[in-house]
Amino acid sequence: MIFSDVVKARRSVKTYDSSRTIGRDELNRLFAEVTLSPSAFNLQHWTFVAVIDPEQKQKLREAAWGQPQVGECSAAIVVCGKLDAFEDVADIYRETPQEVQDKVVPMVRKFYEGQEQLQRDEAIRSASLAAMALMLGAKNRGWDSGPMIGFDPEAVSRVIGLTSNFIPVMLVVLGFARGDIRPRACRRPVAEIVKLNTLDGPGLT
Amino acid sequence: MIFSDVVKARRSVKTYDSSRTIGRDELNRLFAEVTLSPSAFNLQHWTFVAVIDPEQKQKLREAAWGQPQVGECSAAIVVCGKLDAFEDVADIYRETPQEVQDKVVPMVRKFYEGQEQLQRDEAIRSASLAAMALMLGAKNRGWDSGPMIGFDPEAVSRVIGLTSNFIPVMLVVLGFARGDIRPRACRRPVAEIVKLNTLDGPGLT
Repeated sequence: MIFSDVVKARRSVKTYDSSRTIGRDELNRLFAEVTLSPSAFNLQHWTFVAVIDPEQKQKLREAAWGQPQVGECSAAIVVCGKLDAFEDVADIYRETPQEVQDKVVPMVRKFYEGQEQLQRDEAIRSASLAAMALMLGAKNRGWDSGPMIGFDPEAVSRVIGLTSNFIPVMLVVLGFARGDIRPRACRRPVAEIVKLNTLDGPGLT
Repeated sequence: MIFSDVVKARRSVKTYDSSRTIGRDELNRLFAEVTLSPSAFNLQHWTFVAVIDPEQKQKLREAAWGQPQVGECSAAIVVCGKLDAFEDVADIYRETPQEVQDKVVPMVRKFYEGQEQLQRDEAIRSASLAAMALMLGAKNRGWDSGPMIGFDPEAVSRVIGLTSNFIPVMLVVLGFARGDIRPRACRRPVAEIVKLNTLDGPGLT
């Protein structure tokens, strides 16, 4: 699809046709695009747990305040952020020239080590960038998606066996919409959300 | 452009042709697409300060560890997150049926009020979703972009006059690349970043 058409067609969908599935090959191709998202120092703080097993989906649904779309969707993706992604820096830079490794590896470790709020911010930031690529990429394949923050993070972590170095940043349900999609909700106008040069500057018109 | 081509063509660019500008009309059209991004309860926690004034860009550059691309780019966008976006809920839902307002407005306020970590998480999450739409949308128009977290948040806030209910989540420089773009850095394979059903489940292949 044309890029702008994808952006306009993507909607946050809450009801899914539970009889339809998404092939693993197609899911794989989608995630190959998602991995092209940017991240600070290319640390790729994202990890995705794709819940497709019906029993596991029901457990995840319970952890998400019982919301039906988690059970109905074709795949419920738990978008996770890795708090200690900086520990991977040597591995991620292993193919770069030695002088790059010698500079970047200690710098990145020093930047994040012991900085718990920064680690959390970064995990959310990177995982969210990737989540947007995931939702747009899904629409490009004719699938619908719905981002969700309405869940108990501890319960979700338990269901999918997250270790303590990960946080669940968002759920993204993927599948095929059932029923009519509501008209798009109101958006704040560009002149209100984009200010020139300073926060109290003129709005972009 | 075709969606998948945009995703593949988007790169994080660090050097810009400072002689080129981006028209306000085009910038406006880009942000009209960015506003279509999803956010929790449609609160649209994002606000963008588009720094285009040359002097202001130099001040922003100083706040961003002196990195040259902030001065060279056509527009340096400070992607901000609004910590108290939940205070806007009544305004955002003003055109929905009264029974929706009666349910959603108090629920949203209760969900966020006093929850400082959640407010911060949400501001980063929503602003990052929008930032990804911004970078992809820029590439679709033939522009380059570069996301940056290398800056002093307090100094950036001072330069653009952020009030205490906002945080700078990311800088995104926009413009036209100068010089060759480096080969894409390595990405973790899909089988490593996507696990089926649980974190220790099989990788997606």
